[in-house]
Parts: sequence; C-alpha cells; structure tokens
Amino acid sequence: MKAVVLEKKNELTVREVPDPGRPGEGELRIAPRSVGICGSDVHYVENGRIGKFVVEKPMVLGHEASGVVTEVGPGVEGFAVGDRVAMEPGIPDLSSKASRLGMYNVDPAVRFWATPPVDGCLCEAVVHPADFTYHLPDELSFGEGALLEPMAVAVHAVEKGGVKPGDTVAVSGAGTVGLLTACIALACGAGKVYISDVAVAKLDTAGQIPGLRTVNLQQEVLSQAVADETDGWGADVVLEASGAMSAYKDLWKVGAPGNTTVLVGMPAGEVPVDVVELQSRETQVETVFRYANDYPRAIELAASGRVDLSRFITETFRMEDAVRVFQRAAESRPTDLKLQFDLS
Amino acid sequence: MKAVVLEKKNELTVREVPDPGRPGEGELRIAPRSVGICGSDVHYVENGRIGKFVVEKPMVLGHEASGVVTEVGPGVEGFAVGDRVAMEPGIPDLSSKASRLGMYNVDPAVRFWATPPVDGCLCEAVVHPADFTYHLPDELSFGEGALLEPMAVAVHAVEKGGVKPGDTVAVSGAGTVGLLTACIALACGAGKVYISDVAVAKLDTAGQIPGLRTVNLQQEVLSQAVADETDGWGADVVLEASGAMSAYKDLWKVGAPGNTTVLVGMPAGEVPVDVVELQSRETQVETVFRYANDYPRAIELAASGRVDLSRFITETFRMEDAVRVFQRAAESRPTDLKLQFDLS
Amino acid sequence: MKAVVLEKKNELTVREVPDPGRPGEGELRIAPRSVGICGSDVHYVENGRIGKFVVEKPMVLGHEASGVVTEVGPGVEGFAVGDRVAMEPGIPDLSSKASRLGMYNVDPAVRFWATPPVDGCLCEAVVHPADFTYHLPDELSFGEGALLEPMAVAVHAVEKGGVKPGDTVAVSGAGTVGLLTACIALACGAGKVYISDVAVAKLDTAGQIPGLRTVNLQQEVLSQAVADETDGWGADVVLEASGAMSAYKDLWKVGAPGNTTVLVGMPAGEVPVDVVELQSRETQVETVFRYANDYPRAIELAASGRVDLSRFITETFRMEDAVRVFQRAAESRPTDLKLQFDLS
Amino acid sequence: MKAVVLEKKNELTVREVPDPGRPGEGELRIAPRSVGICGSDVHYVENGRIGKFVVEKPMVLGHEASGVVTEVGPGVEGFAVGDRVAMEPGIPDLSSKASRLGMYNVDPAVRFWATPPVDGCLCEAVVHPADFTYHLPDELSFGEGALLEPMAVAVHAVEKGGVKPGDTVAVSGAGTVGLLTACIALACGAGKVYISDVAVAKLDTAGQIPGLRTVNLQQEVLSQAVADETDGWGADVVLEASGAMSAYKDLWKVGAPGNTTVLVGMPAGEVPVDVVELQSRETQVETVFRYANDYPRAIELAASGRVDLSRFITETFRMEDAVRVFQRAAESRPTDLKLQFDLS
Repeated sequence: MKAVVLEKKNELTVREVPDPGRPGEGELRIAPRSVGICGSDVHYVENGRIGKFVVEKPMVLGHEASGVVTEVGPGVEGFAVGDRVAMEPGIPDLSSKASRLGMYNVDPAVRFWATPPVDGCLCEAVVHPADFTYHLPDELSFGEGALLEPMAVAVHAVEKGGVKPGDTVAVSGAGTVGLLTACIALACGAGKVYISDVAVAKLDTAGQIPGLRTVNLQQEVLSQAVADETDGWGADVVLEASGAMSAYKDLWKVGAPGNTTVLVGMPAGEVPVDVVELQSRETQVETVFRYANDYPRAIELAASGRVDLSRFITETFRMEDAVRVFQRAAESRPTDLKLQFDLS
Repeated sequence: MKAVVLEKKNELTVREVPDPGRPGEGELRIAPRSVGICGSDVHYVENGRIGKFVVEKPMVLGHEASGVVTEVGPGVEGFAVGDRVAMEPGIPDLSSKASRLGMYNVDPAVRFWATPPVDGCLCEAVVHPADFTYHLPDELSFGEGALLEPMAVAVHAVEKGGVKPGDTVAVSGAGTVGLLTACIALACGAGKVYISDVAVAKLDTAGQIPGLRTVNLQQEVLSQAVADETDGWGADVVLEASGAMSAYKDLWKVGAPGNTTVLVGMPAGEVPVDVVELQSRETQVETVFRYANDYPRAIELAASGRVDLSRFITETFRMEDAVRVFQRAAESRPTDLKLQFDLS
Repeated sequence: MKAVVLEKKNELTVREVPDPGRPGEGELRIAPRSVGICGSDVHYVENGRIGKFVVEKPMVLGHEASGVVTEVGPGVEGFAVGDRVAMEPGIPDLSSKASRLGMYNVDPAVRFWATPPVDGCLCEAVVHPADFTYHLPDELSFGEGALLEPMAVAVHAVEKGGVKPGDTVAVSGAGTVGLLTACIALACGAGKVYISDVAVAKLDTAGQIPGLRTVNLQQEVLSQAVADETDGWGADVVLEASGAMSAYKDLWKVGAPGNTTVLVGMPAGEVPVDVVELQSRETQVETVFRYANDYPRAIELAASGRVDLSRFITETFRMEDAVRVFQRAAESRPTDLKLQFDLS
Repeated sequence: MKAVVLEKKNELTVREVPDPGRPGEGELRIAPRSVGICGSDVHYVENGRIGKFVVEKPMVLGHEASGVVTEVGPGVEGFAVGDRVAMEPGIPDLSSKASRLGMYNVDPAVRFWATPPVDGCLCEAVVHPADFTYHLPDELSFGEGALLEPMAVAVHAVEKGGVKPGDTVAVSGAGTVGLLTACIALACGAGKVYISDVAVAKLDTAGQIPGLRTVNLQQEVLSQAVADETDGWGADVVLEASGAMSAYKDLWKVGAPGNTTVLVGMPAGEVPVDVVELQSRETQVETVFRYANDYPRAIELAASGRVDLSRFITETFRMEDAVRVFQRAAESRPTDLKLQFDLS
C-alpha cells in the first residue's frame, strides 16, 4: 500500500510500504480517509527527532485521522465494515500502574502513531484496537473527525484548568491548539475569554469566533489587558498554548489569586519561572500530555455544534502532494490552521 | 414605605411599613425594581413556617430582587446613585468558621431575606451591604436581574455536579430551577442533557430550549431513557430539582459508575435510599444550600447570552396585585415559570 | 485439591475439588496460606445469595488471602517461586470504560472471588493474575497479609472521605471494618477520632487503641457527643461502617457544615434520608464499593507499623474445622474481630 | 514597652516603643511569651527588604508567637484574661474576594506582622483580633505554641500536596520547614518519606526522626534515590522546601506520573523549568503562600503528639540578647533549627 514516509531527516517520500495485514483479536482494519498534519510531524521531518524519540529508520507519518472500517477482527463488538470512525493514536498498556490509576496517557509504555519507532497513519490501511476507535457521528465530516485529535488535547487542557461557570479565561497563543482551547473553554462555561498572539493574521481569525476577545501582543501585554477588565483580579484560568519562550515572561502575572495555569504548548528549551510570583497568588500549574478518555468528550461537543471544527480546516490535499504540503506546513503561515490529506 | 407583608399564616397585606433609613458603613440604600416570587415565599404564606423558621410576627416577603442604588453609605467604593444592581439576599458572618473556609452559605448565622425574623425585599426600599450587591450589566433587564437569584442556585448545583466537557447530564424536574439547571449544564459543556417531569406542559416548555431532551415520566422512566441512549452506562451527572418524593424511587439508578448526583430540590419528608445501589456504582451525592460566590458567575453567563433568562419570566405584576398574584403562585400552574413584581 | 465448598444455602463441606491447573500468560499459581472469613462469606452460607448474586451451584468460599507462589506463568516479571504474596480478589476488564477512568472496582464485568459463579480461595491452590498479586513484606505475617483485603476497603473509605490534617472524624460501628477505618483515619492525620457502637465489648476493644475515643450508643448519641467536643461544629468526616439501619437515624446530624459522610457498611434495606438536613450543611455523601489501587497503600501503612493488623486476628483455625468455624462466625460475637484459616 | 526594633537595614536595637493600648471591638491584648526567629526576620535585617516590601521606618520584628491574654476587648467571646494562646500573624480583609473564596492568605490586602509597614510581635504587648487567636492546649509549651506558625506553613503544604495513604513523598531541604513538612507528611499517612540536603548535620537531625529516609546530596541525586526504591515510578508527592536554586535542577525528575510537586521554599531568583519534562508525567505544581485555616489543624496534630515540636527548639534567649541572637541566626548553622525568645 501507499504511504507518506519520512525516510530520514529532511527526506520525505510517497511510496509503497508493507500492508498491515488482517486485524487480530480486538482489532479493526481501517482505511484512513482524512489525516491532518501536526506540528510534531513537521518537527520530525525537519529535525529527525523530538527529545528522546529519534527517527532511526523510515517511519510513516501522521497521527490525526478518521477513516472507514474495512475489516472487523475476532472478538470485536459494536463495529461493522463501512463504519465511519475516528482513531485515538496512542495505545497504552492497560495493566500498567498509570493506566490503572486512570492516566493511561502518562504510561511510559504507550505506543503512539508516528513516534519512533511506531509508524503513523498517513497511508492506505491501518490495523488498530477497537478499544481506541470511536464512531464518527453523521454530523461530523471525515476532516472534522481527524481534527478530534488536537481537539482532545484542548478538551484535556480545559478539564485540567477546571474551568468553572463564568470564569475569566486567558489563552496564550492563537494557533490551532490555542483557538481550539479557547473555543472549548467558551463551550464549557467560561465567561470572558481572552486570546493573545503576536501574529495579527491569527488574531483576525480568532476575532471572527463569537465570544473571543483578542489581545495583540505587539501593542499590549496579556496580564495587563486581563487585569484592566477584571478590576485587577486577573484570569481564573490561564492556558499557555503557544509554546513560545517569550510568552513565559508575562505568563505568571496573568492569573488571579488561586488561579490555575495550564501548560499545553511545548517550549523549545527551559523557561525561567519566578516562583515567588507564583507563590504570592498560590498559582496551581497543570501540565498536559496528550489526553485520556477525552475522545468521547470531544465528539459530543463537536457533534452538537458547540465547537465548530469546520472552521479549522484551511485546505485539503492529496497524498501525492505530500512533499509540497509538508513544505508549506513548515512555513507556519499565520493564516494556516489545519492542513489535511484526503485519502478517499 | 409600602411593602407586601405576611401578617401571619394565610394573611397577606400590602401596607405601609417603617422605612429602613439611611445606609450605614459599607451599605447601600436600594429601590427594588423587580422582585420574583419563590416557592419559599408561597410556602411561608401557606404554612407560616419552613422547618425551624417560624413566622412569629409580620414579615415582608421576597428575596429575588434587582433595583437601583438611591444612596451610598460611608466607606463604599464602586457604587453610585442610579446604578442598576442585583442583590444577593443572604448576609453571612464573614468571620465565622464556615465563611473562612469559603462556604459562607452554610454559616449557621447567615441572615437571609424573608426568612423569619428577617424582612424581605418586596417593598420600596432596602438597605443592603455593598459586599453583597452586584452591578447589573446593560444586557440584563431588571426582571432578568431578579432571576439571578434562582440562577445562582442552579449555577451552584452545576458546579457541585462537576460537569465535565461532554458529560451526559440528567435533570429530574422541569420547573424553574430544573430548567435553569439544565440550561446551565448545557452552557457549561454538558453533552446530552435529559430533563424529566410528569407535567406535559412543563416538558413542552423544556422542549423549546435547544439542546434539551425531554423525558415524559407518564410514559418512561428516567433511568431507562438515559441507559437506552448511553449503551447502559447512565448519566455522568444527575441533578434532582423536583423535590418530589416520587422522583427518589428511580433517582439512584440514573447515574453511571462514578456519577455525581446533586440534590437541589427539597422533598417534604424523608426519602428512602437504597445504599447498596449507590455503593455498587460509587455514586457521590452532593447537596446544595443556596450558593456562595455564584452571583458573578451567573451574571457572566446571563449577560453573555449563553443562558437566556428572559424566557423564564412568565408574567409581571404590580405590588397592589400581591394577594391575587400569590394565590396564582400557589396554584403552581405548569405553564408558569417565574411570576415577578415590577416596582418601578 | 481440598477446598471449603458452599454446596448450597446452609450446606458447607470440606472436600476435593478440581485443581486449577497451571498458570497461563501473566498468571501465577499460588498456595493460599492464610484466608480470613468475611461477613459476605457468612451471608452466602446463611442466605445463598447477596442481592443479584445467587449461589446456583457449589462454590468455593473465601476472598481474603495471602499465600506463596508455587509456579510462575509465561510473561510474568517480578515474581519467583517461593515469594510471599497477597492477592487482590477482584479481576476487572482493564479495557472497560470504568477501568480506563481509573475506577476498575465499579466495572460491572469485574470477577470477584467467592461471588457467584466465581470460586473463592479457601482451598489449596489458586491461579491468579500477577497484575493483581502483591509482594508481602517481611514485616507482615500471612495472617496480616490476608487482612490487607478488608484494610483496602478501609483505606479506600478514608481516601473517599478526604481526611485532611487535624480533621475531626466520627466512625459509626466498631466492627472490623469500623476499627480499621478509624485506625487508618488516625494514621492519615485525623485529629480527634470518635467511634461508636451499641456493643460494649467492641468499644472495649476500640478503647485499647491509642487515639480512639469511644461513644457508647446505649448511653449517648454520636452526633451529640461530637458536637459537645467541637463547639457544636460537628465532624469534618463521618464514616458509616456498621451497616445498621438504626445508625442512619442520627447519621446525618453528625457532620459539620461541608462535611463528607462516607457509606461503607451495607444496610439490609432502604434507609430513610432527611435531604433537607443534608442540604442545610451541604453534606457530601460518598459511597464505597471495595477498592481500586489501594493494596499498595494498605501494604505501606501496615508494613511501616502505622496500622497494627495483628490486633485484628482473633483466632486461627485449620481448614478441617470449617463447618464449626463458620458457625462461630455466624454468631457475630462482639469479642471476635477476624477469624482466619491457616492453610500451611 | 520594650521591643526588638529593626531601625533600618543592619541596625537592630532593643528599646522602648509606644504601647499598643487597649483592645478594641473583637480584639485581645496579649503579652507574648515565646517568639521565634524566622528567615524572613533575618532577611529584613540583612537586606532591609523582601521583594516589594521595604523597611522605610523602624519596625518591630517577629511574627511567630504565643502568649497570655491580658485584656479582653468588647464583643469577644471564648477568651479570658490568663488564657494561653497562639496568634496567627496575618489579618486579611474578610470581605475581599479571595477571603470569600476561602483563600484569605492570598488576599492582597492582608496585614502581616513584621512585614513593612506593619510592626511585629517581638515586644511586651500586642493587640490582636480574637478571630485570629487560638487557645494553646495544655500539652503544648509556649515555645511549641510559637512553632505553630512555621508548622501551619508545612501543614498547608502537605494539604496542597494532597498526600494520600501510603504515598511516596520526597522533601527537598532539611531545614526547619522541610523537616516539619516531612514530619507532617508522615503523620498524614505518607508511606516512604525521603528528605534530602547538602548539609550532613541537617541530615543527622533528620535521621533521628523515626520514619524519615535521608538522601545526602553530596553523594546522591534525589530523583535517582527515589526511583531506585520505587521501581522507577518516582515520588507521588514532592515538596520543595529548601528554596535553593540548585535544587531545581533535579526537582522536576523526582515525581512520578501524575505527581504533585509543591513549592514551599522561596528561591532568590528565577529558576529554570523544563516544561516538556513536566508535561511528560503531567506533573501538577502547587505553590504555597503562608496558610489559611491551618492553625487549628496544626494544633490538633501537635497536641496529640503526632508531630513533636519540642525537637525543633534549638535554644531559647532573652530579649536583651537580640542583637547577638540575630547574628547567630544569620549564620544559618546547620545544627540550628529554631531560635526563640522567652519573653516571660
């Protein structure tokens, strides 16, 4: 079958790879129909590694996917050939200590698509456990189904933030994850929701979403903008979704006494933290690693129309165009939200 | 000044009462503009008591109110004559143990409007602490401002329920508080929201609210209706808002493993509980007594339009009509949501 | 091999049963060395059922056990023949929704020893998953190892109670689980710990444990005893461990504003609940079904000597004596805590 | 009356200051009997400031105190002349938003002893609100009563850590607060408790406390020591109590998946944080600012003997010796825990 393969750092090809074969006990064979490009895919292409995960042999890219069931393995209930589905890309060891505590995402043994040495799903067929496959409601397109993956990150972040009804929320970074996070915070009862960025084009996109208040970091500081509109109290929940080192300078001043600050973005290096500043308001810092038990939550919010995923799909491409599409993704155009492949 | 006075059980008059005088340190004098009738007001009229609170001398009724500031006491900042405001009707001792723990609503020393021997606000002027008075945003009418009081109960209940993104929620009872609770659950990220009642007229009202799924208890059982649509899992959060003894028969079967069941309604007597049923799913039962720190949350959700309070106002009356209006309130017509007085 | 078999209601035999065979993938073969009698075992003997679980064919009794590994199945790491171990008696489906949420104890598909139709461990050999088998530290005897099972219930209850440093705790019922719960609450930072019972002999035992304050229900009411010593505030955490219907009359008055009341005991029928009483103090009611992830916690507390399990072992018997021992257990002597079998 | 006055940076005197006068409404006049020296007192002496708090006029030092009531102000109940008491040194505005939410410690308007421009209690008489004064049980000496202040910090930190029964806990720093924190974690149900330091003398002291396991940072790394004894899992709760910049290098590696890391110590500058390391285990970082509602908790644990405060009192001095005592305190001798003044 055909796949988009990262041969090694900076060398991408579209070529034949071995077929994954038939589904085993508890598994489904699925034909991916929509696969999105994530920043981590681009990072592997450009750097050949993320932290301790190193591309040492050719690897199929892609982990944001929806598709159609083409074969049902033995022992699987609730799925039939032809079912439209979304696939959760990480498969933990369910008997691990972390999994048994309900945090299967931080199980060190988790196998995750397109994380070396595990192949991803930007290909014609995958075999995947039914336990981590979800029915895609009619209300959602395949493209929206593939967007459930970053949406699950955002749902998990909002949950970690513990957003309560009417809370003032500040989101740092108006990229895909930042915007999704802001939209989900709104859908989950946040009061005022601020979103900041340095890129005016991103703020323009954000400004079109009802309920979001944009903060242009070329003109304002997020902490001050929030303080000005909350009588100096600050944000009840702060969500850092930019991953920018520069965002950390102001970050610890944005929250109110007793605030929760959630770190979603992944900065490229160590960030400086003013501990005494955190202590003075007893900030609680939460950190997010993917998601656990969040796909069903994301599906509910998206299918009911409370979070409109269609606005996040900037453009759709064919697998053959992969090299050029990844080049565009690497440009990080401020007007690009999600670029996806249509594999139908 | 004029007031609606409960002279004693079953004897209501509209008559002159002593003026409350000028505001003291930290206080405001406020002219109520809209005052809603609550079930507790009606209960005092009909029974002369609620539990240990007994009407032993004439008492002004009413505790759901908005109004206009007419005088600002010494030491008050942030308020001016003419400000439109909503008033939180309970005044706790802020130095009590409960208050210092952040639960001022369960401070046994709290003084609450129209709870004997404390006079209510269905009158021409009240003096109230600025600390428990909130600015009414332009987006909200005085009638909606008075509705913030029952809305605060519902916000508090949803918070206690710990509704998480996409949760299945079941609300028992489609009266004012049940409907408000269901609407707030939706606004706070619930997925499917079911609301049940025996009164078809109430379900008709509920059915007009986008996102609510009605369950007619004359034809169905709530637990079964929810189980049928959740693969037998049940509701993640259950909110009992009817106060009906009969609702308790099915109540403990509605929740999923690990569910939270919140008791908002006040049943007239002891209810039977099947503890082993609760244990088998480790149900967590939360109970709600009014609210604490919830007015600002209610104001945010209402002012942003995410909870439309205007639909809850069934009809508005003049103070002179009080006797007849309380008679109608006592009828508990299924098509009546909130009856209010316009005191302008 | 030999086993204690409940042939049917009221008919207990000690006889040969089929050998469980060799351990499969991920399993251990274990020779039980100490097995305790639980109230549920006695209940099955006397009634032939507990709720929906009915003894329809002969069933080996016993689920509180420690033993020695006699064979290690393929794929198992960390265990060797001769290892002293304690066994967690319930085996959930780790891929179920409840398990993935971290609540494997409320997974409806859990298989639990001596719960029809699953055989128990009062026999010469069992095969058990290594994932639910724990090393028994040298500090703990086999008898103490078998007591880890009821101790895990108590640990789970104290966790659900959310005992905070210095909290006033009230335990209703001074049987084995009540005493264990009280001891664990003390070991987990509770301040004053009260324990009540109607049986003077049980209170005598409780009174010998340093730090416990006994309340004789023949002379006092628990709520009043606690109120008297807390300036009327009440208990921060209440743990109901008697399962007595009569305990519920006073139970809801024991807790302070904002208290958590944990229901551990299993009453024989529905109990009456005064919801308004609960609401007036916003009591949070938690319910307990066995335990999840609590064996390691119990082992830590017992092995470090902070909870002395040896005092809970009243007498030890041989398997041959089973009929007479179960008769004694059925008497529920107030001086009996735990009766155990030594299978060495 | 006599007091220990910081005239300005590096200039300490013992001299007459104005008497605080008679207690007002809700206040007590108290004669301090024991006052401990805190690191912040020494810091003000040596630097004339801590962050934004600058010594701009002479200030009485001291905030850790116990004493005897010498006069009872109007409206005070529950206190009499001669009562032995401990005083909570910070007085918040109870009507502030933070206070009403139950976090009076992060109320920006809190007035705290010996924090410019507020005078401390190292003097012959203070006037203090009865609401923030606590009865000292007979079991506790005045010296132990003064130690309740740092103990309250440690109690608050352990609460923030959410220590659960049997949790593995790692404490960074074996000074007074670190040791107190470790002792309280043990008293609150922690399993293995590790405490690390670079100073061997401090570890010697720690090693004498039953249950603490010491880690000598000159020979070992804390994260490795904990990993070695927990099968690589790590600590469930990490408490940073050294405030040393150097401790932060290893800190983020100490915790297990899903751990809570509590920052109690106050580092002198910004610390570097590896966000991705935190995210990989979803570390929750909690920060601590003093305490709220913790004095009663500390008193319970100390009076019941579960935390022995007497071992923390290294030496006691007279007020006349203040200059020399502060010099010694500034030396930070590793064998010194708490130095106190006896003002009787």
